[in-house]
Amino acid sequence: MSKLVECVPNFSEGRRPDVINAITDEVKRVPGVTLLDVKPDADHNRVVVTFIGAPEACKKAAFNSCAKAAELIDMRTHHGAHPRIGATDVIPFIPVREVTMDECITLANELGKEIAEKLDIPVYLYEAAAKRPDRVKLPDVRKGQYEGLIEDIKKQERYPDYGKPEMNLKSGATVVGARQFLIAFNINLDTPDIKLAKKIANVIREARGGYRYVRAMGVMLEERHQTQVSINMVDYTGTPLFRVFETVKSEAARYGVNVVGSEIIGLTPLQALLDVAEFYLRLEGFERKQVFEENTEGM
Amino acid sequence: MSKLVECVPNFSEGRRPDVINAITDEVKRVPGVTLLDVKPDADHNRVVVTFIGAPEACKKAAFNSCAKAAELIDMRTHHGAHPRIGATDVIPFIPVREVTMDECITLANELGKEIAEKLDIPVYLYEAAAKRPDRVKLPDVRKGQYEGLIEDIKKQERYPDYGKPEMNLKSGATVVGARQFLIAFNINLDTPDIKLAKKIANVIREARGGYRYVRAMGVMLEERHQTQVSINMVDYTGTPLFRVFETVKSEAARYGVNVVGSEIIGLTPLQALLDVAEFYLRLEGFERKQVFEENTEGM
Repeated sequence: MSKLVECVPNFSEGRRPDVINAITDEVKRVPGVTLLDVKPDADHNRVVVTFIGAPEACKKAAFNSCAKAAELIDMRTHHGAHPRIGATDVIPFIPVREVTMDECITLANELGKEIAEKLDIPVYLYEAAAKRPDRVKLPDVRKGQYEGLIEDIKKQERYPDYGKPEMNLKSGATVVGARQFLIAFNINLDTPDIKLAKKIANVIREARGGYRYVRAMGVMLEERHQTQVSINMVDYTGTPLFRVFETVKSEAARYGVNVVGSEIIGLTPLQALLDVAEFYLRLEGFERKQVFEENTEGM
Repeated sequence: MSKLVECVPNFSEGRRPDVINAITDEVKRVPGVTLLDVKPDADHNRVVVTFIGAPEACKKAAFNSCAKAAELIDMRTHHGAHPRIGATDVIPFIPVREVTMDECITLANELGKEIAEKLDIPVYLYEAAAKRPDRVKLPDVRKGQYEGLIEDIKKQERYPDYGKPEMNLKSGATVVGARQFLIAFNINLDTPDIKLAKKIANVIREARGGYRYVRAMGVMLEERHQTQVSINMVDYTGTPLFRVFETVKSEAARYGVNVVGSEIIGLTPLQALLDVAEFYLRLEGFERKQVFEENTEGM
């Protein structure tokens, strides 16, 4: 088994298929990289691209697709519902297999430097790669968006981590970083009372004193006549799924409300589910290599 | 991802390393087959060999190692604590990936026919491959062992499924079959009362009216001053781990006893643990391909 990294760049183009294809073609072209998913959104005028591969190959694919976006997207005429500061808005690296977070931070630094030097685009580092605490969270880095940053970048506290403190008017700026795998985890309650769902979301979310690495909100499920605690688990190794699930269950029970089910939207690392099985079965001394399929890699 | 089968032949030699090596060399020699484990036992005078690979390749490795055992092992002078009827005692095929049980049954039939025809060894089919209900269970097929079968094979009800009703005196007979993956699952109780552990084992074991596909017994854990319900889950798709665990927990609670932990000994298919996570998180609409690593096969 070899080193594997995931990379999920977001580009500020969700409407023109030819532009999106030209960008993703740059990813496909790099040997050792596999394009997993391309999700354009016309309202957001943005596309989320997911690929995996060896660390160096992923860095190359990220740079090449960023260069293509710089060529084909002009931020001076870009409009969309989603916050953004550049043609390539954000590039996170995520450790998948035999790669540490530190290695992803190094990747982010190398890529950021290369983008700044070769494409003349200012680069900010965020999440685990952040060099300042006020740049850990993406919304903080993106404050004022492309339009506001044209002036703000000249202020010292907004100086980019790589590149000159001067906006690239065509391409904007780019945020590069390293983070854990994000799991979209929703828990459904057998009550239509949205206030209750919001109350429970507040109990578990980090911003309100709940669990670290948990973002949550209450959502109405109109068709089911139920509500949902909609959760982003931004580091399942820090706060595991079972802990959040058990807390929601117990808080709901206090109001006589049941958890009717939960959903994982999109992908989850295997380890997050193994942790769940280990917890509930109270497994002693379990090792991942006891999973049969872990021994069949490449067969 | 390609078809993958596991094969776990047991040979009647656990003492002479040169013989064991000669047998396992036959497995290693077949392209497309990976030797996973070799577990000799001197008291049993028996070796358990585990390998995986493409179905046809596994069949070839099974035949070649069986032929080598027929050459190097003489049942007329074999002694050991474990029941056996032949030099190659039993060969089960287990579906692992993209292979159905029916395909494993076909493999067992093809291999059994080949062993009977080319090596002149009588072959019985067992478990999912059995052609008669009294040959499903291995102990039934092995009744009287090598020594008793020399005469018994001539009786119509003991006629082999492939080959002549006449014992091969040097090599004995061989049992070939198809079965599900067996998970060794132990549940530890915070009581030294072995009677209670046995009582709970009886509640869950199939033989005493408990869950189908469950074999269980009560065991003393001297060093821990605790007891254990020691379980063989012979088909986790029929009776899942979580159901057995919850039943043991609830039966123990009736006596004020707690489950302090559980253990999985050796390997388990990934699906058995995903089923546990799905159950406890009450997951809706979860699909295995949502496991990130399922998309990185061969990378």
